[in-house]
Amino acid sequence: MYLNEFELIKRITHGVKISDGKLIQGVGDDCAVIAGESGIAQLLTTDALFEGIHFKKEWMIPRAIGRKALSVNISDIAAMGGKPLYYLVSVGIPKGMPDKDIENLFEGMAQVAMAYRMVLIGGDTCGSGNGLLLSLTVIGEVEHSRCVFRKGAKAGDAIFITGTLGEAALGLACLSNRLRNMEVRDFIKRHDDPIPRVLAGQWFSASGCVSSMIDVSDGLAADLMHIAEASGVGMRIGADKIPLSNEFKSCAGNCGKDPLMLALTGGEDYELAFTVSGGKTDLFEKMLRVVMPTFRHAVTRIGEVVEGSGVLAVDAHGANIPLHSLGFEHKF
Amino acid sequence: MYLNEFELIKRITHGVKISDGKLIQGVGDDCAVIAGESGIAQLLTTDALFEGIHFKKEWMIPRAIGRKALSVNISDIAAMGGKPLYYLVSVGIPKGMPDKDIENLFEGMAQVAMAYRMVLIGGDTCGSGNGLLLSLTVIGEVEHSRCVFRKGAKAGDAIFITGTLGEAALGLACLSNRLRNMEVRDFIKRHDDPIPRVLAGQWFSASGCVSSMIDVSDGLAADLMHIAEASGVGMRIGADKIPLSNEFKSCAGNCGKDPLMLALTGGEDYELAFTVSGGKTDLFEKMLRVVMPTFRHAVTRIGEVVEGSGVLAVDAHGANIPLHSLGFEHKF
Repeated sequence: MYLNEFELIKRITHGVKISDGKLIQGVGDDCAVIAGESGIAQLLTTDALFEGIHFKKEWMIPRAIGRKALSVNISDIAAMGGKPLYYLVSVGIPKGMPDKDIENLFEGMAQVAMAYRMVLIGGDTCGSGNGLLLSLTVIGEVEHSRCVFRKGAKAGDAIFITGTLGEAALGLACLSNRLRNMEVRDFIKRHDDPIPRVLAGQWFSASGCVSSMIDVSDGLAADLMHIAEASGVGMRIGADKIPLSNEFKSCAGNCGKDPLMLALTGGEDYELAFTVSGGKTDLFEKMLRVVMPTFRHAVTRIGEVVEGSGVLAVDAHGANIPLHSLGFEHKF
Repeated sequence: MYLNEFELIKRITHGVKISDGKLIQGVGDDCAVIAGESGIAQLLTTDALFEGIHFKKEWMIPRAIGRKALSVNISDIAAMGGKPLYYLVSVGIPKGMPDKDIENLFEGMAQVAMAYRMVLIGGDTCGSGNGLLLSLTVIGEVEHSRCVFRKGAKAGDAIFITGTLGEAALGLACLSNRLRNMEVRDFIKRHDDPIPRVLAGQWFSASGCVSSMIDVSDGLAADLMHIAEASGVGMRIGADKIPLSNEFKSCAGNCGKDPLMLALTGGEDYELAFTVSGGKTDLFEKMLRVVMPTFRHAVTRIGEVVEGSGVLAVDAHGANIPLHSLGFEHKF
């Protein structure tokens, strides 16, 4: 039986030195944050992609695997309001992997890096007897005073999300069901090639209105639970507020999936979920309308932070939607 | 067919942004080096340990795996003359691995971290279908002007090593041959629990005499080749200068291994190999005699940097010892 993630973190950090003078945030947020010069803080994050767990060779070409590996790490920088700068790559290469595939893997990372003017600064390559293994570390920076953590949410804050949720999970379901027609292409792309919300994250942090933020990698309910636990609050989501397109609902039906379940619990969308301080919600929405045209995705208010703990979803009539019945399990 | 490492690095960095204003050293040394405040540079390194490739579960308990994973990363910091500060851990946990084993894995890292007052600042945990997978990133610092690179060796410099070489490879041979008696225990310990030469590395860098440095992870010949290629020089090792104890020679014989072959090509000793500027060798050796009692290992002069390229080993009569015949292959 696996420990849940918080229990695990508590145990593995027991007796470990997890703070020093320059460390602003250690284990327990999207990035570690270290104080730097002139009010600039450094952000560090690491995320792995393993063959058979995070991707299947049959489903993704090496270039796409490389792109995704870097993008999901950048997403953690975005969730702090930061700017990505450098990356290190640790790669286990299975015997017989053609040189061209290795090059394409790194070219995929380079494509994403180029979009953010990021620099490859180091790595480790070795053989692997267990399929392709990728672990990346990304370093970024953020103005210290603008850095947004998981722990800042307060009762009365409004909950927002960027873009649409559940689409990556639907894409995965399409891949599992061997659906590859034109209608599902966009959902598969959401799964294969997530776009980290760097620009939006930076703008949210600069707005001065955002009290907490996380990227949606485990699924909305699970990730809001991270904010809830770090902030000591509860989260109330209006299920009817979550944007679900007709194409999404129809495709989910074809895959035998409940669209709302996908949106509430599906992972890997790499959208941002964040809270806006209660007193600043009007100001934030006003500023948002001005800046929205520069984003290529929606920003939607979906609920509010409440006293207490846990994540609650309610329907349009205020009735509780049991998340467990939708497949949400808060576990490691 | 695998590319050799330099060819690979050249290909994967083709068209990739690998430098910016603050980057002092990118890909191609033990650590990346980023300029920081007040003359302090930041060091970053990443190294992975995969089950089946770097360790066997039958041979190492989780605590030992954790210790080694952190130590080999710290060794890269030592090779720049730096001080380790923080670490991030990315771990793939196989199904069925007991919670207690996961705790012990992290406790092993924590033991090593404590010795250097290092701080765990982040990580990523997920399931693995392919055995235990560990990838660590270590962050350290060094006075910018004192940082020692691979690229500084010049013809006329003297080559030195810390400690003894080939013992980790001998320990591995003992494990393969199921030798576990008292006589081989120290060699197995060298393989299982390497001690990074942090104090020595810092002292070498502070001495102002050291022109290049690397940690011996791939084997002396292979690692001196890294210095040779980065510096555009050749390396001439006196095989008779390499310290080989009687216990080492006798145990190597019992395992059917040539002791000199082990010392020249055996990997994972995590000693330091470095060069001292020609004009400063006497001064360095004089200072070394003063500081030696604080080290727990020897420091031995084993050869000199020459014009040209490649690594050459000669016997006491100056005759060439063909490294290829000893099992040395310079490949990825």
